Amino acid sequence: MMNNIVTLITDFGLQDEYVGVMKGVILCHCPKAQLIDICHAVPPQNITLAARMLAASYRFFPEETIHLVIVDPSVGTDRAIIIVESDNHFFIAPDNGVLTDMLGSKNFKTCYQLIQTSSSPISSTFHGRDLMAPLAGKLAAGAQIEDLGQEIDAANCKKIVFPRAFFENNILSGEVVSIDHFGNISTSISMEDIEYFSAKLNIYIGKETVTGLRTTYAEVPSNTFLGLIDSRGYLEIAINCGNAAQKLGCRIGEKVIVRQG
Amino acid sequence: MMNNIVTLITDFGLQDEYVGVMKGVILCHCPKAQLIDICHAVPPQNITLAARMLAASYRFFPEETIHLVIVDPSVGTDRAIIIVESDNHFFIAPDNGVLTDMLGSKNFKTCYQLIQTSSSPISSTFHGRDLMAPLAGKLAAGAQIEDLGQEIDAANCKKIVFPRAFFENNILSGEVVSIDHFGNISTSISMEDIEYFSAKLNIYIGKETVTGLRTTYAEVPSNTFLGLIDSRGYLEIAINCGNAAQKLGCRIGEKVIVRQG
Amino acid sequence: MMNNIVTLITDFGLQDEYVGVMKGVILCHCPKAQLIDICHAVPPQNITLAARMLAASYRFFPEETIHLVIVDPSVGTDRAIIIVESDNHFFIAPDNGVLTDMLGSKNFKTCYQLIQTSSSPISSTFHGRDLMAPLAGKLAAGAQIEDLGQEIDAANCKKIVFPRAFFENNILSGEVVSIDHFGNISTSISMEDIEYFSAKLNIYIGKETVTGLRTTYAEVPSNTFLGLIDSRGYLEIAINCGNAAQKLGCRIGEKVIVRQG
Repeated sequence: MMNNIVTLITDFGLQDEYVGVMKGVILCHCPKAQLIDICHAVPPQNITLAARMLAASYRFFPEETIHLVIVDPSVGTDRAIIIVESDNHFFIAPDNGVLTDMLGSKNFKTCYQLIQTSSSPISSTFHGRDLMAPLAGKLAAGAQIEDLGQEIDAANCKKIVFPRAFFENNILSGEVVSIDHFGNISTSISMEDIEYFSAKLNIYIGKETVTGLRTTYAEVPSNTFLGLIDSRGYLEIAINCGNAAQKLGCRIGEKVIVRQG
Repeated sequence: MMNNIVTLITDFGLQDEYVGVMKGVILCHCPKAQLIDICHAVPPQNITLAARMLAASYRFFPEETIHLVIVDPSVGTDRAIIIVESDNHFFIAPDNGVLTDMLGSKNFKTCYQLIQTSSSPISSTFHGRDLMAPLAGKLAAGAQIEDLGQEIDAANCKKIVFPRAFFENNILSGEVVSIDHFGNISTSISMEDIEYFSAKLNIYIGKETVTGLRTTYAEVPSNTFLGLIDSRGYLEIAINCGNAAQKLGCRIGEKVIVRQG
Repeated sequence: MMNNIVTLITDFGLQDEYVGVMKGVILCHCPKAQLIDICHAVPPQNITLAARMLAASYRFFPEETIHLVIVDPSVGTDRAIIIVESDNHFFIAPDNGVLTDMLGSKNFKTCYQLIQTSSSPISSTFHGRDLMAPLAGKLAAGAQIEDLGQEIDAANCKKIVFPRAFFENNILSGEVVSIDHFGNISTSISMEDIEYFSAKLNIYIGKETVTGLRTTYAEVPSNTFLGLIDSRGYLEIAINCGNAAQKLGCRIGEKVIVRQG
């Protein structure tokens, strides 16, 4: 009863044939696979951003979807390749922390490690093509996770720590986590973090102070800063019909402060 | 008998997970949907260019295709979301003018407005994901347009005015409407506008004068300017094997003049 | 028994509707076609790079896949459009040399030339949409290659010469052929070319000397140059977790030398 949707998150970009080639390999194993790009613009080697992107997207796919997440600076070394079943989705990735959330989820079910038995030659620079795409194709074609590797203890998998917000002396401190295509600035400060404050809060980023929390961009005039909760549930600083990151010269990791106004 | 092809035109870009997430939502409603990207590089908030892109593309898809067009600067406000059946295609978009052509077409059939009844939480910044993708998914899965909203009078929908060409004192004046990946410059001057002139016409753009109308790029030597009718039916200024927009420092909205040579 | 996968390699970019429109046309002929983007970022008019991309990718797709390769600086002229069956795959492209490898393969089977009989109007600037996409759609829908044109002698098709490496006075000379999204530099020096040398070889590029051949990026410290054989089988110069092309200011065509260390 598994669906045959396979999503892809990589740092491969779209200027080379890499993503297309992986899709070809998946289709060799499962000609009816539905291949959906989530994003190939993860900054090179940025495991944290890939993990955040996965967290913001996988839930919106049908259950049993297979998610391939390939940001793999250690390609070719002995780092494992893991297959995780969690929250009724499947995830395939290098064991580098990108699946931290899934491994720690209360809906985590199982974790397998690929045992390499392939008879075809394996490159040491493109395991997406040679190891992970075949796994995804086999799963999509109906293989059982038990047939694809060996069960391992999730406790032994690599975990990463995500940027969070912290609260001290009535000041909530967080940081810029990502900047989207529109120049909207997403932070590590969650909707829950911010509930402590009343509506008249102040947000400090760079030299800018933004007052209050809006619901829509259009609540402020064009080219005006505003703060709101983004579609992922985090504090966002934006400019209505403008590019906030560009205006602020903002970078990932930059400090963001919230205080009662 | 509806096909289950859903196309997407947005200003979301491809650096975030937004497009992939919308596809996930559509697949939740219609796991067999065929999802086709037309373009995600509409300049942010540019409704006119999105409309022009839709006009240049929808006809090339099978009848009954569902076209999602999401350029939505007023997301979260009370602007309606509309579903239009026109020219045997379906269109879903915010009521912001992006469907002007479809609403005014002689093949216009009907227009519905989404009545929000969803029980799941709706973000106020991503109606593409929370309202429009579900609509597209339901339509693709076979829902009737009558089941998705309430019929409204197309006359009450927002319309936009597209840049056109005008003729005065034997001078045809238009403007640059878009610049493509190759640097080819497309204008608001249509094939029909230009029929008034004989073959020896002159095209004036910036400091450049281009003489005559060619049929193919290769009719002039490499790195030479030429004018021709583009694949959408509009006057285009190009450089054979070169980038005309870059050479001219050309911008959208810039004036283009045609006179008899 | 043909599969209905159609891949696309073009120099169209993704900022316009061109690629989406071609997919619409294919779907009109074959609504169940599986459309897979290999790459649309071929540098404009660069037939050699498109051919190399095709060589690096087609083998990874199921047999009988149809590959559309559209880099077409002579669009609209009398250059032919050809359909090639080779190595159990199908290829559709302008007769401009982009299929040189397929035409010369020991697994080459047949070559047909499109005979234009279409009754619909044909643009002279977008044969991808008006001529090649319909061909791909018909093939995907089950048409026989014999029904799509007229058999021609492959010897009469245009061929191109690819950059190779040459060996003289114990020096192996090649050139930079492509630079990928990560800034990894791929050369015209193949794995076979390099077998002449023992492990202690030196690679010279720009002002940099890179010693030895590694198997994985992670074998050297971060931000360190290394040489290895890339996933296509060619010598690559890279920086572990860095951008080698940017660091070297490297360009396509630049000389690369290998000598015994």
